[in-house]
Amino acid sequence: MIVTLLTDYGREDEFVGVCHGVIVGIAPEARVIDITHGIPRFDVRRGALSLRDALPFMPKGVHVAVVDPQVGTQRRAVAVLCNDGRVLVGPDNGLLSLAWELSGGIDLAVDITRSPHRLEPVSATFHGRDLFAPVAAHLAAGAEVADAGTPVEAEALVRIELPTPQRDGEELVAHVLTVDGYGNVILDASHDDLAGTDMTLGGHVELKARDGTHGATFVTTFADVEAGKAILYEDASRMLAIAVNRGSAAEELDLAPDTEVRLRPR
Amino acid sequence: MIVTLLTDYGREDEFVGVCHGVIVGIAPEARVIDITHGIPRFDVRRGALSLRDALPFMPKGVHVAVVDPQVGTQRRAVAVLCNDGRVLVGPDNGLLSLAWELSGGIDLAVDITRSPHRLEPVSATFHGRDLFAPVAAHLAAGAEVADAGTPVEAEALVRIELPTPQRDGEELVAHVLTVDGYGNVILDASHDDLAGTDMTLGGHVELKARDGTHGATFVTTFADVEAGKAILYEDASRMLAIAVNRGSAAEELDLAPDTEVRLRPR
Amino acid sequence: MIVTLLTDYGREDEFVGVCHGVIVGIAPEARVIDITHGIPRFDVRRGALSLRDALPFMPKGVHVAVVDPQVGTQRRAVAVLCNDGRVLVGPDNGLLSLAWELSGGIDLAVDITRSPHRLEPVSATFHGRDLFAPVAAHLAAGAEVADAGTPVEAEALVRIELPTPQRDGEELVAHVLTVDGYGNVILDASHDDLAGTDMTLGGHVELKARDGTHGATFVTTFADVEAGKAILYEDASRMLAIAVNRGSAAEELDLAPDTEVRLRPR
Repeated sequence: MIVTLLTDYGREDEFVGVCHGVIVGIAPEARVIDITHGIPRFDVRRGALSLRDALPFMPKGVHVAVVDPQVGTQRRAVAVLCNDGRVLVGPDNGLLSLAWELSGGIDLAVDITRSPHRLEPVSATFHGRDLFAPVAAHLAAGAEVADAGTPVEAEALVRIELPTPQRDGEELVAHVLTVDGYGNVILDASHDDLAGTDMTLGGHVELKARDGTHGATFVTTFADVEAGKAILYEDASRMLAIAVNRGSAAEELDLAPDTEVRLRPR
Repeated sequence: MIVTLLTDYGREDEFVGVCHGVIVGIAPEARVIDITHGIPRFDVRRGALSLRDALPFMPKGVHVAVVDPQVGTQRRAVAVLCNDGRVLVGPDNGLLSLAWELSGGIDLAVDITRSPHRLEPVSATFHGRDLFAPVAAHLAAGAEVADAGTPVEAEALVRIELPTPQRDGEELVAHVLTVDGYGNVILDASHDDLAGTDMTLGGHVELKARDGTHGATFVTTFADVEAGKAILYEDASRMLAIAVNRGSAAEELDLAPDTEVRLRPR
Repeated sequence: MIVTLLTDYGREDEFVGVCHGVIVGIAPEARVIDITHGIPRFDVRRGALSLRDALPFMPKGVHVAVVDPQVGTQRRAVAVLCNDGRVLVGPDNGLLSLAWELSGGIDLAVDITRSPHRLEPVSATFHGRDLFAPVAAHLAAGAEVADAGTPVEAEALVRIELPTPQRDGEELVAHVLTVDGYGNVILDASHDDLAGTDMTLGGHVELKARDGTHGATFVTTFADVEAGKAILYEDASRMLAIAVNRGSAAEELDLAPDTEVRLRPR
């Protein structure tokens, strides 16, 4: 059985290794895949988006995600059985919500705060080790989701809020969803949102953001323009995105999550 | 059989991957768990503490640690069979000493400098590849510790020196053991060392360090205070620690390993 | 079967995890070894050197490398069967060329741009996921290289250009090949290139680079000199290299790839 891990623990400390050790100790046959541990600390939205983008390429299994600024408080911890059979484990703060939408919605959700699978005593600050990893390992080893905690109404779980694009005349009013490790800027709009505008592949686009206006070319890949030039492109998850070839669009265009970006043909 | 790895090699170069390749080549059935490769370069104490904190959560196996400023010199390289059955492999510079204390002490220690399992020629600068990984792999594949090198008296091995807390009237005089990747500051004192002081959970604490005095709240987790506020808490390894919610206590309070920190109720 | 991965994807995003997921989904029995994902972005030479240095320590298998500034353009993507049985998969930009030289040369090369194993639709920017990982996984699962794409003449593949050292009287005129994550500087010269000079182990060497002249000791390991002192040494891949004990030679001596370094006895 597959267990995937996605956290904001980073790799400097032993935290990720400890989660692996806990899983292997409980479920020696499990195969553990690290999706990433480089989510910026406490960036729940980025974690939710990374999990959503990675999940279609993961074999079905138990998918743990931990980006958890409220660890140790009253926030709920949950295991969620999706309608496509995937199981999600993590804090109830919206982190898992894009993943269960993608996986056909929720079949069953349980509150695992006092799960019989937890390692006692549960520390206040390291639920990855004491709660999420052991619950996931028991599920991967064959335990039932229903036995991992107490039932919760699916509607009671926290969903993440994402911005949505609008049209304003000939402009597409988009927003920054997140920024990846290269400084590429992912927007909340897809190629379909350009229908009816004059922005087409190969054309020039004007980007208005904060007080600045920037030119970009609408192309398919970075190397379609010279180093240092900005591009609009469809990223590998089919969202519109802004990059600077061999540079950081986030830095050079001063873009951050939720920044409004107005796109128009030029 | 489990092989765990903890080093200061970082992930930028191919060094960690090469150690994995060597192990898999010798012991194809071994399962390799990376505890961390992010120990700050040459920080033997941090490595020793990370190994000690991770070990209770690792299945028993062969546990390699390499933080080795004296690589290639006359410092000894060792394999240590602990009384609980764990085997430790690494340089004899104190890095392994907290781990064997935790594992019931030393049953058998051997000098592996000229181990029959080493890869020849042994380079002067990459003993992870040429000495520690192959010795660990052979041990994981069933070789005996006694056959991996020549006997060494347990008493002859290097131990790491750690500071210890004292009481000075109503003050607890603690010291910084290490700083984790978030800037959380781990002290050499535990909750028990607060017995008889007026510092109790929920109360306010005064921290004196270098020339500064800082206020903190004694709570269980980061989110118990506002962003930017300092806390005293019991960390996941049950040591007292200082953090700043969504910040770096090490930077904001100017704390580094061995800094004296005086704690008193406020 | 072994699949090794070497990329410049970094660990901050989910890209590496996604490649693992794709491989495990196609080839559940494959064992995946991460050589490194920390190659500096688009540094094809560094990637080629890391792969060459790591390969002798990897069990034979399918070896994927992705450092690919021209992703999505007309550059070829290839799978290469080497004469020693290793299979290399990656972009045709020189990244694989040092590896196939080391592996006895090319037995068979195929263009995998339209491989039957690719994931469709192939994105323009993430060929690791859509092309290289699935092709490698099918090869690891038993598919034939000949069936993974269309034949290419071995001579048509791109080779990487490396500088070569020369002698100028008593000086050895070397060049910086690359700089590792510690700031150690790897030269294009080996110990053999010192034959006939008066530079011998234990002696003092003068290094001239750019406008500066630096003294160094020719020793076997870092700790042979005090902290802060420069050394010339033979690195673990048997190339001459320059380091500063507990420092960064690249920074302190202002050395970068292709910088000329003149070495003479002092």
